[in-house]
Amino acid sequence: MRRAIPAVVLGILASGCRSNSAAADAGSARDPSDARREIVDLMRAQEVAWNQGDIAAFMELGYWRSPDLTFYSGGEVSRGFEEMLARYRKNYEGPGKERGTLAFTQLDVVPLAGGVALARGRWDLDYVAKKDVGGLFTLALRHTEAGWRIVHDHTSVDG
Amino acid sequence: MRRAIPAVVLGILASGCRSNSAAADAGSARDPSDARREIVDLMRAQEVAWNQGDIAAFMELGYWRSPDLTFYSGGEVSRGFEEMLARYRKNYEGPGKERGTLAFTQLDVVPLAGGVALARGRWDLDYVAKKDVGGLFTLALRHTEAGWRIVHDHTSVDG
Repeated sequence: MRRAIPAVVLGILASGCRSNSAAADAGSARDPSDARREIVDLMRAQEVAWNQGDIAAFMELGYWRSPDLTFYSGGEVSRGFEEMLARYRKNYEGPGKERGTLAFTQLDVVPLAGGVALARGRWDLDYVAKKDVGGLFTLALRHTEAGWRIVHDHTSVDG
Repeated sequence: MRRAIPAVVLGILASGCRSNSAAADAGSARDPSDARREIVDLMRAQEVAWNQGDIAAFMELGYWRSPDLTFYSGGEVSRGFEEMLARYRKNYEGPGKERGTLAFTQLDVVPLAGGVALARGRWDLDYVAKKDVGGLFTLALRHTEAGWRIVHDHTSVDG
């Protein structure tokens, strides 16, 4: 049996297939090696910003600009981009404060799904006038319109 | 213009559309409230296992049985399900060791994509013979054939 189908109907069917595929690609087929490279680049850019004394750029380059950004550090839970920036400024800027030299090492990026990744590794802050500090971090990242952004940061200190 | 299309070709086109949609659903349309409930249930089952003294069940119920399971705690990186189980047994079982009573609180589950979620909160171990300990945790979970499993655990101690 052969049926006659209007070309316009075939066009709709075909475009339906295409748009489904495009949605799936955006969600699930983002190249994992691209994700790894982009996230490592992001963290290197954050290091540069910190070490140039630009804490606002450090935040803006890496973190999700949202009140739902979360930061777990030691026993303390913080929430919100603006709150986190204020906290960094309070702790690292101004008279008598030392920002230190930041290095991220042992970087390990794990793409978990299209547009979702985990990044973990070590952070170290080397100081001139006080004892160096460092520890481990785990970041959850999402790919947003602005690129990859950290949505959750769990940072711990060697102990 | 009208074109005649064999029914079998339409069937292939239509099934292509359907299978694309099914794949997208499996990946992205897992119900977030199901994920939250299932992951909270998993953590409650882990608490019960720990508090019954069954460390193997605590591990098996929650953690990905893989050499790629990762556990970041304090300044230390551990890798592998078997290694993590051996470490728990060494630290919490046997003469002179106290397992303590485990409680997870402030649980916050964030579905990140279909089959990928973040869970975070507080853990506390109450001891009879020594000082209680506790802190924050961040877990990355994947939905596997066995259900949700923790693929990465970052645990820190109050300090």
